[in-house]
Amino acid sequence: MKNSLKISLVFSLFFSTALVSFSQDHPCLMLTPNSVENIRAQLGQAPLFGLELAETIKEVDVEIEEGIFVPVPKDMAGGYTHERHKKNFFILQKAGNLFQITGDEKYAVYIRDMLLEYAELFPTLGLHPTNSSYATGKIFWQCLNDANWLVYVSQAYDCIYDWLEPEQVQHLDKTLFRPLADFLSVENPQFFNRIHNHSTWANAAVGMIGLVMDDKELVKRALYGLENDGISEEETDNDGGYIKVAGVRKAGFLAQLDYSFSPDGYFTEGPYYLRYAMLPFLWFGKSLANNRPDIAIFNYRDGILLKAVDALLNQTDAQGQFFPINDAQKGMSWLSREVVAGVDIAYFHGGRDPMLLSIAKKQNRVLLDETGFAVARAVEKGLAVPYQQNPVSYVDGADGRKGGVGILRTRTEDGELCAVFKYSAHGMGHGHFDKLSYSLYDELGEIIQDYGAARWVNIDQKGGGRYLPENNTFAKQTIAHNTVAVNEISHYDGDVKKGEAHYPVPYFFNADNDGIQIGSAKDFDAYEGVELHRTLILMKADDFQQPILIDVFKINSEKENQYDLPIWFQGHLLQTNFKYNTALNSLSPLGTAHGYQHMWKEATGSTEDKNAKITWFNRGRFCSLTSAVSNKDELIFVRSGANDPEFNLRHDPAFVIRRKGEKNTIFISIVEPHGEYNPVEEIPHSPFSSIESVEVIHDDSEYTVFHFEKTDGMKWEVALSNINADKDANHKLEINSEKYEWQGPFYIFKK
Amino acid sequence: MKNSLKISLVFSLFFSTALVSFSQDHPCLMLTPNSVENIRAQLGQAPLFGLELAETIKEVDVEIEEGIFVPVPKDMAGGYTHERHKKNFFILQKAGNLFQITGDEKYAVYIRDMLLEYAELFPTLGLHPTNSSYATGKIFWQCLNDANWLVYVSQAYDCIYDWLEPEQVQHLDKTLFRPLADFLSVENPQFFNRIHNHSTWANAAVGMIGLVMDDKELVKRALYGLENDGISEEETDNDGGYIKVAGVRKAGFLAQLDYSFSPDGYFTEGPYYLRYAMLPFLWFGKSLANNRPDIAIFNYRDGILLKAVDALLNQTDAQGQFFPINDAQKGMSWLSREVVAGVDIAYFHGGRDPMLLSIAKKQNRVLLDETGFAVARAVEKGLAVPYQQNPVSYVDGADGRKGGVGILRTRTEDGELCAVFKYSAHGMGHGHFDKLSYSLYDELGEIIQDYGAARWVNIDQKGGGRYLPENNTFAKQTIAHNTVAVNEISHYDGDVKKGEAHYPVPYFFNADNDGIQIGSAKDFDAYEGVELHRTLILMKADDFQQPILIDVFKINSEKENQYDLPIWFQGHLLQTNFKYNTALNSLSPLGTAHGYQHMWKEATGSTEDKNAKITWFNRGRFCSLTSAVSNKDELIFVRSGANDPEFNLRHDPAFVIRRKGEKNTIFISIVEPHGEYNPVEEIPHSPFSSIESVEVIHDDSEYTVFHFEKTDGMKWEVALSNINADKDANHKLEINSEKYEWQGPFYIFKK
Repeated sequence: MKNSLKISLVFSLFFSTALVSFSQDHPCLMLTPNSVENIRAQLGQAPLFGLELAETIKEVDVEIEEGIFVPVPKDMAGGYTHERHKKNFFILQKAGNLFQITGDEKYAVYIRDMLLEYAELFPTLGLHPTNSSYATGKIFWQCLNDANWLVYVSQAYDCIYDWLEPEQVQHLDKTLFRPLADFLSVENPQFFNRIHNHSTWANAAVGMIGLVMDDKELVKRALYGLENDGISEEETDNDGGYIKVAGVRKAGFLAQLDYSFSPDGYFTEGPYYLRYAMLPFLWFGKSLANNRPDIAIFNYRDGILLKAVDALLNQTDAQGQFFPINDAQKGMSWLSREVVAGVDIAYFHGGRDPMLLSIAKKQNRVLLDETGFAVARAVEKGLAVPYQQNPVSYVDGADGRKGGVGILRTRTEDGELCAVFKYSAHGMGHGHFDKLSYSLYDELGEIIQDYGAARWVNIDQKGGGRYLPENNTFAKQTIAHNTVAVNEISHYDGDVKKGEAHYPVPYFFNADNDGIQIGSAKDFDAYEGVELHRTLILMKADDFQQPILIDVFKINSEKENQYDLPIWFQGHLLQTNFKYNTALNSLSPLGTAHGYQHMWKEATGSTEDKNAKITWFNRGRFCSLTSAVSNKDELIFVRSGANDPEFNLRHDPAFVIRRKGEKNTIFISIVEPHGEYNPVEEIPHSPFSSIESVEVIHDDSEYTVFHFEKTDGMKWEVALSNINADKDANHKLEINSEKYEWQGPFYIFKK
Repeated sequence: MKNSLKISLVFSLFFSTALVSFSQDHPCLMLTPNSVENIRAQLGQAPLFGLELAETIKEVDVEIEEGIFVPVPKDMAGGYTHERHKKNFFILQKAGNLFQITGDEKYAVYIRDMLLEYAELFPTLGLHPTNSSYATGKIFWQCLNDANWLVYVSQAYDCIYDWLEPEQVQHLDKTLFRPLADFLSVENPQFFNRIHNHSTWANAAVGMIGLVMDDKELVKRALYGLENDGISEEETDNDGGYIKVAGVRKAGFLAQLDYSFSPDGYFTEGPYYLRYAMLPFLWFGKSLANNRPDIAIFNYRDGILLKAVDALLNQTDAQGQFFPINDAQKGMSWLSREVVAGVDIAYFHGGRDPMLLSIAKKQNRVLLDETGFAVARAVEKGLAVPYQQNPVSYVDGADGRKGGVGILRTRTEDGELCAVFKYSAHGMGHGHFDKLSYSLYDELGEIIQDYGAARWVNIDQKGGGRYLPENNTFAKQTIAHNTVAVNEISHYDGDVKKGEAHYPVPYFFNADNDGIQIGSAKDFDAYEGVELHRTLILMKADDFQQPILIDVFKINSEKENQYDLPIWFQGHLLQTNFKYNTALNSLSPLGTAHGYQHMWKEATGSTEDKNAKITWFNRGRFCSLTSAVSNKDELIFVRSGANDPEFNLRHDPAFVIRRKGEKNTIFISIVEPHGEYNPVEEIPHSPFSSIESVEVIHDDSEYTVFHFEKTDGMKWEVALSNINADKDANHKLEINSEKYEWQGPFYIFKK
């Protein structure tokens, strides 16, 4: 604040007519007296901003009309008191912006009156009566929601701070805001002092109200954390995540920036939570940019905040829906309010990337501040350029050495194929036990799905909107994902602590050639004595109607094991090339634990042919999977939904290839989207797979060679170097007197 | 033809400059020399027509480029020879239009060359090798497809008839067309002489080629059928439908018009087949209008053809998808090519209804003839008016006395609620055993679904694209629908012949008041000694967020029975107000026959409360059902998919209220769509039901009275007269010393 005041004074020397408005200290968070002036002056030139303003006025005016409700806290998420307090903080923040931009005092009056009611209520509150969180809140059932409240409400308070009587300010500071800030920090160190999205909210809440109140102690606490928190390394939160990250002794907002993201902006919990976590990062970041230019927050750690926004936007399907990596409710997308903030702030404080404007147009919303205004102005000027997601490999871990996520993605004339390959670290309490799993998308959505979380966020009827028991017992388990489960046990035995201690190793990644994109990673720790090595190849060639995905899953073990490779195909099974026996009159689960207890075993088969093929149909498209198998492999169809006493799970199908009694083995499969059909035309186009066969030619610790052939006789050979990923290394191999020579970790050759 | 020639000559006296083109006899079916002249002259003024023309040229030119393929018939639907011959007839018909409109001879050459190949092939053909139809074809596996071929190809032939050398015409007539026409008629009377959509295609095919060839015998055969067909009354087709309709001795196209539709245009098989059947009706109708004005075909039977188009368009959900009454593949809609013809011909030959133009705009396609041209011109002039489906009750049966279908439908500011109440006749071979069933839609689609057919039309992998075994064993059965099944047996014991012999009785229908729409019907024959009486009330009131559906299902029987009322709710079960036990580790079917063998029994419960309530979620909406039950009722959750060896069925949920050991009984339920939720906002709006209770106050053979109450205390009472539907009748009733007096079959009163 001191800094912004100084700048104001410098300006006022030159523009003395503006002296009156510049003499204010507030607002200082999202808005400044100066930015408010600018917005007011050019309001007519930014229709998208005008639209947002008009809609916000409409929304807030209805609330003002209805009156102020500050009920005594009682309910869980979804219940009345929860939803009411949540609505209050959303409306208060908006009312603050409206007061600044329109100058209409009724908004200030509304904020003041509601804050005074909160100041009445707050001192009377003990812990929330639900008392079921590792950090129970006061206004809400958990401190996290109290911190949300404060992040929003500090903005409202900021907007009316200079308008209030000094004694009102003093009263609110003393009775409501400072006690709440202390409650969220010193009184709940296990909540405040983590490296976790919960703590980011806490840090931002405490820091933002500190800036408004010019309370340097709070700002310091927010930036650098509590010095002595006394938290044990064994303490966990409600999701089973550990409070402390081994080896990390720092806390506070800057430590969040240091440890929450990988160097390229990947967030270990995945994009669903990155989206949620971004808002306090961006808002407190923006507040610091206004008040503490000494920190140069948007340049901090090589511009990590802006990199994180980039990474967030890129981890989306063609509709802008986030890949449901780890715990994630499907359907969340870049249309969310948090990403509106991300796009606007990244546009303004980043390089004014015109691709961001096309997302802003889809959002059709902007922040009511200078960043949103800049976006709206640029959209009006026609500067928007279509946003394109790119193939990329992200590293995970603050040091960038804890695995990663590889996105293979290729566009065609009218579509795309995108494989999301997960070899990241565990993802803390929200992590799933799915090392080396993948999911597959076309431009319409999922082809091979990741289940996401077993949760209906905020829907009271489903466990109060919280994670459901089946999230732990099914959605997090290995078999619920498209990766190998050994001996019907989940990776790391389903133990978060073990999961957090290890991470896969990226082997190589190459998306330089749009026609052949390839990612490869290994895991040595998910099972003791078992090495997993998966390579995914996205191939686009004129010989195929659409791009295909080649999946090579190699396993080394000194002991015999059972290997299950599930493929959670999305859609209705049309056909197989093998016989199977369907459970006609009785269904039982596939197993008893590690998620197996939640899958009905619908059919089993086997084949004397060397390839198992299934074809399914979804959303007007066909897709086939062709996999090299032996006649001893069990080919199993399952469906989720067993042992689900309250109908919490979706009933989705999967195909499981089960191989028993092998030590080293390899699964090679080709996923091939093809053709289309719609019920209006009723004419199937290319309903059949064009893959004739996949054949393993050679497989040892050093090299894997396989062929695949199309029904029209075209044939490809693929060779992989399994222990040397050097792109300049030369490889030679002779198999059945045929010679293979190549450079680098792989080659693909059309014969 | 003689007539059109006469008219041409009259015209030519006045417009002698046009003499050359008017001296032609052909084309005479969809196009005439005159209409071609008009189209050519105004081509620039009808962009939609120009678009269609351009796309057709593109499509046909690709085919001409690829060459002519007339393979020896071999495959079922979905296989190569089937799909190739099908493509041929579509392309030939288009090429004919292009030759006429563009004058480019390459189209004529293409048609001629392909027809000559067919003339080579045809005489060599015996019956199609599949030999699995009640009327096996030659080019295709069934005569039906051969008739499709001829309906399309006769148009192509018509367009080049005058361009061909006379000896080519003679050759084609003698070697291909007349033999095919005979094959489809005199050689297959069981196919040609039915009252059935198959025969309509046959009649149209024979009639249209007869008009082209000026073969009066064929035209007569088409119009009036074969005189002596020698078909037994016991003969059935592949779908189990009877060839002969009891009492009907007439056949041919005019008999189809007499017997296929009810007086208001309802088609007993349902809209999916009406759509399919309409094309030959419309095309042969249009051809007759051009050639046989003496018949005045569009005025025939009070304009039955145009009424049928009206009825077809009105039996759609908000997306224009046909209600899947009886056998129907879901997703078929007014965008289909048959409805393009329906809309264009109805617009041109009907009253130029501007609402039809808005559908034409959605179709974005028109026929390449004068009707399509007129539509495109009118669209260009901006004459389109939004199409609105209306509530209506259709009668079924040629005499209008065989039951019917009632559509209750009310619109709100941003949506609608629509109940489709089925009390129609059986629907021949495609009929389902679902007397008094209903399905429910909002503006987004199904809320309570009709399963539709178990079939993947033309998808070879699923039974060659034909009806699957589960269509008979599940989709047609009573329990697969939203109506009562008694003693686990389907209506009419699942016997088509019994089903065809009876039909429900409409009791009353009133949609005059948009806020209270009500339909009521009875059935006396589905079960011996059991009377079923259902009344559906669609109610829109300011007291409810959205319209609700009240369902009153009354049953009289002198014997004790088990009554099952299934509700096939679409979506994910969120909550119930009663306890249930879920089958956790083992699933078994609900029963052994009549469709019960295909439903897994997932959970059963009961309640001491007098109401059972379930809430489900789908497509961002909540919906609740509240039903008056006793503590003896079993409350069962099932899911389709049991005994399904090849994964032919969808796995959809249903809620079944089971009442045992009662004679007379009544089920009263309220279906209440409410609220919304989307995964981007994550804020549930109105996720809870507002219905507190439903209570039966009185129920005997004469009267039914019940109350229902909202959670806010508002209360309604409803009274129904069960045996007197006279709208002027006065009713008096005293229950618990409370007096009820009203006029007409029902009253609804807010207390």
